[in-house]
Amino acid sequence: MSNDAPAKIGLVTVSDRASRGEYEDRGGPAMKACLAEFLSTPFEALSRIVPDEQPLIEAVLKELTLQGCSLIVTTGGTGPARRDVTVEATEAVCQKMMPGFGELMRQVSLEKVPTAILSRQEAGIHFPEEGPGALIVNLPGSPKAIRECLIAVFPAIPYCVDLIEGPYLETNEDVVVAFRPKKK
Amino acid sequence: MSNDAPAKIGLVTVSDRASRGEYEDRGGPAMKACLAEFLSTPFEALSRIVPDEQPLIEAVLKELTLQGCSLIVTTGGTGPARRDVTVEATEAVCQKMMPGFGELMRQVSLEKVPTAILSRQEAGIHFPEEGPGALIVNLPGSPKAIRECLIAVFPAIPYCVDLIEGPYLETNEDVVVAFRPKKK
Amino acid sequence: MSNDAPAKIGLVTVSDRASRGEYEDRGGPAMKACLAEFLSTPFEALSRIVPDEQPLIEAVLKELTLQGCSLIVTTGGTGPARRDVTVEATEAVCQKMMPGFGELMRQVSLEKVPTAILSRQEAGIHFPEEGPGALIVNLPGSPKAIRECLIAVFPAIPYCVDLIEGPYLETNEDVVVAFRPKKK
Repeated sequence: MSNDAPAKIGLVTVSDRASRGEYEDRGGPAMKACLAEFLSTPFEALSRIVPDEQPLIEAVLKELTLQGCSLIVTTGGTGPARRDVTVEATEAVCQKMMPGFGELMRQVSLEKVPTAILSRQEAGIHFPEEGPGALIVNLPGSPKAIRECLIAVFPAIPYCVDLIEGPYLETNEDVVVAFRPKKK
Repeated sequence: MSNDAPAKIGLVTVSDRASRGEYEDRGGPAMKACLAEFLSTPFEALSRIVPDEQPLIEAVLKELTLQGCSLIVTTGGTGPARRDVTVEATEAVCQKMMPGFGELMRQVSLEKVPTAILSRQEAGIHFPEEGPGALIVNLPGSPKAIRECLIAVFPAIPYCVDLIEGPYLETNEDVVVAFRPKKK
Repeated sequence: MSNDAPAKIGLVTVSDRASRGEYEDRGGPAMKACLAEFLSTPFEALSRIVPDEQPLIEAVLKELTLQGCSLIVTTGGTGPARRDVTVEATEAVCQKMMPGFGELMRQVSLEKVPTAILSRQEAGIHFPEEGPGALIVNLPGSPKAIRECLIAVFPAIPYCVDLIEGPYLETNEDVVVAFRPKKK
């Protein structure tokens, strides 16, 4: 993949109210601000707002992968309520789940609030029939919690994107140091 | 839901020997004692003893939900042996699993015994076709381990029960402080 | 099971290149060296090298169980890439997954490298139609990481093997102390 084109990153806000315009989307801009802070590689953000409907969330995750996003972050829909289905949609489109992401994000959130265990957030890889895969990472709904979770797992994200044949991502090392094992 | 009626809580002891009366059920009373210690809200305990048979465990979890239990705790049947099927029954009736509960309970148990990793205990939400859901939490078999695990996750339980439209639970704050995010 | 015959332990290296002989298998010998260091019980190692093909990995896990292995350790194939399918093969043959193993192994690896969350390694029990089950533990590909992960979970392995009716394993207590709960 050419290093000249900016890396494409999908930002998905899952919210009934935001999708109807009843509520300002604060999660999408918060995710975009984190990525701008963490990444030194230029990137193009593809933003989507969808209601809490599993088929619609699945469709947008697939569409963003086909658009060339190797990393997709979502906000909202990870709780225990009936309409919280972002995790179900993620599991439905991912051939591989990555349990370490959810474990670590809950662990860092647990240092802040005991209700962190109510978040079912996960990460996984969606491989389309052809072409590179997309790492999908579920983030919480609250803008403050978005940053806490994303910064915790971000050091592993550039290498993960390498392994699924995505673009070479570099970070602002004063904020996040990406880790890549030394070539043998 | 009226705050006047006591909250209903299901207590399920899963044990072949206890169900045949060959063995005194110690897990059920231990769970009840914990709830009496942790909760200031009056509650009615619905106690059941079932053998290690997956269909019977599933049936009792559904029955207790239909009886109005918004919280069901189980003891026994979480190990690696062939007949340990409480986790399988829980997964079969729950539409949503909550991995953070099992992760945290194993983590606190691991501070006591290295065999904590052999416990497959989980939590999840069973939603019946109509009406409020039930949070089901698998606890270990040993009475001492029951308290250690339940007190670790209890701060998140009242808010979880709120989110699935159950009764408003309050705790004895000198023992367990329930956490609820501030209304925005 | 007689204590006179050595315990059988399966060692499975999953690697396309090692299976074609293009690459020396370093994971298999590293796992064997760990077991020789940790166990005082005599054991017979049954070593296998298979390519990253899910049906072939499943077949070798079943074959080793039928050969009498109550413990099988694997190396390789736990990452996020398309051809990393050791975890999928393990899940396909195991009736019971043991999430505590993966959680703990990722946690100890995370103290070394932030990319530990990219490892999807798990453990589970494969029960054949008849006879004792086998505990299958996925380990990373790197020899150094193999020891770090295996020593973290090893204190729980002998008791787990007891619970699935395998041989009584004893450890070199200056390296690893096996924990067994006291009989009641």
